[in-house]
Amino acid sequence: MKIIVIGANGTIGKSIVNELSSRHEIIKVGKSSGDFQVDITDINSVRALFEKVGKVDAIVSAAGNVHFGPLSDITPEQYGIGLQDKLMGQVNLALVGQHFLNDGGSITLTSGILTRNPIRYGSSASMVNGALEAFAVAAAIELPRGIRINVVSPNVLQESMDAYGPYFRGFEAVPAARVALAFSRSVEGAQTGQVYEVF
Amino acid sequence: MKIIVIGANGTIGKSIVNELSSRHEIIKVGKSSGDFQVDITDINSVRALFEKVGKVDAIVSAAGNVHFGPLSDITPEQYGIGLQDKLMGQVNLALVGQHFLNDGGSITLTSGILTRNPIRYGSSASMVNGALEAFAVAAAIELPRGIRINVVSPNVLQESMDAYGPYFRGFEAVPAARVALAFSRSVEGAQTGQVYEVF
Repeated sequence: MKIIVIGANGTIGKSIVNELSSRHEIIKVGKSSGDFQVDITDINSVRALFEKVGKVDAIVSAAGNVHFGPLSDITPEQYGIGLQDKLMGQVNLALVGQHFLNDGGSITLTSGILTRNPIRYGSSASMVNGALEAFAVAAAIELPRGIRINVVSPNVLQESMDAYGPYFRGFEAVPAARVALAFSRSVEGAQTGQVYEVF
Repeated sequence: MKIIVIGANGTIGKSIVNELSSRHEIIKVGKSSGDFQVDITDINSVRALFEKVGKVDAIVSAAGNVHFGPLSDITPEQYGIGLQDKLMGQVNLALVGQHFLNDGGSITLTSGILTRNPIRYGSSASMVNGALEAFAVAAAIELPRGIRINVVSPNVLQESMDAYGPYFRGFEAVPAARVALAFSRSVEGAQTGQVYEVF
């Protein structure tokens, strides 16, 4: 398969590339690294990316930022960061990418454990993850030509505990290599409209 | 209790007022009707509303619009309608309203059945509903002073089947009066971080 990985240089992205590269052709995409660059928050940048890359068999996204902050004073603009970047950035990849997928191709996006397992200061991440999961469930029934869409929802990563540990006390951190297996399951499996929780 | 109902003139809003008004003081709010007017998409308008109304015991929202359209050509701007209106409009009510609620007060927002039961052309509604439900689950753990937050997720309304019937074939439409009971359960009960499905 020809697989495009957006966010290929991140902790999850690198593990996905490591998991899939022995069996497939991988195109690595980043904001400023990789074989191609893209600003996922700009649908014109996403369109330019796919016009350069051409048809693919799988679109994998491990990209997107959100703002963390206390509910007592978080602003609409701070929610907007996650809505524009992690949510609509990944949705833009699906909207444009659907027209560049070969028959039977797949789209796999990344949400996260906070959807139903919240932490303090994480209401924007929960919002965005819930939106992504429900979007994928809905998009799955409209995609034509056997095209599939799934979401991988990882727990906090073992590799990120130095930075995020204080916010995720008691969470069973998972290695990025385990998260990569869920991407393999989505890309190389046959299900659609699924949320693969790696908890 | 002193209860502010945003979207009081809608089909669900009217049923909520009907259910709660015999036991409580109701302040009706609409875009252009009611005791007070508000543009929920503008947090400054929401702040001005609460500064006029003052402290309340419950905030109830049955407001918000989304765009319906086929996944094959829906645009980021069309997703933006639902994100700005039904999602962030209701989140704005929670963000400002938390500071105007008496101890033990509650916030109740409206999502909808499409979160996990999608229909064609409904990917924006699913996205927004999923975001609202995950937001409420997360916000519930951060609200101080016994303040609670829940979401009511109604099926398609019997009263709306003339307009929406073709999109909801096979769905068991519910009367708005049944949906209003879920709002009563949220406002007059004691739970928080719940999604009350009225399916």
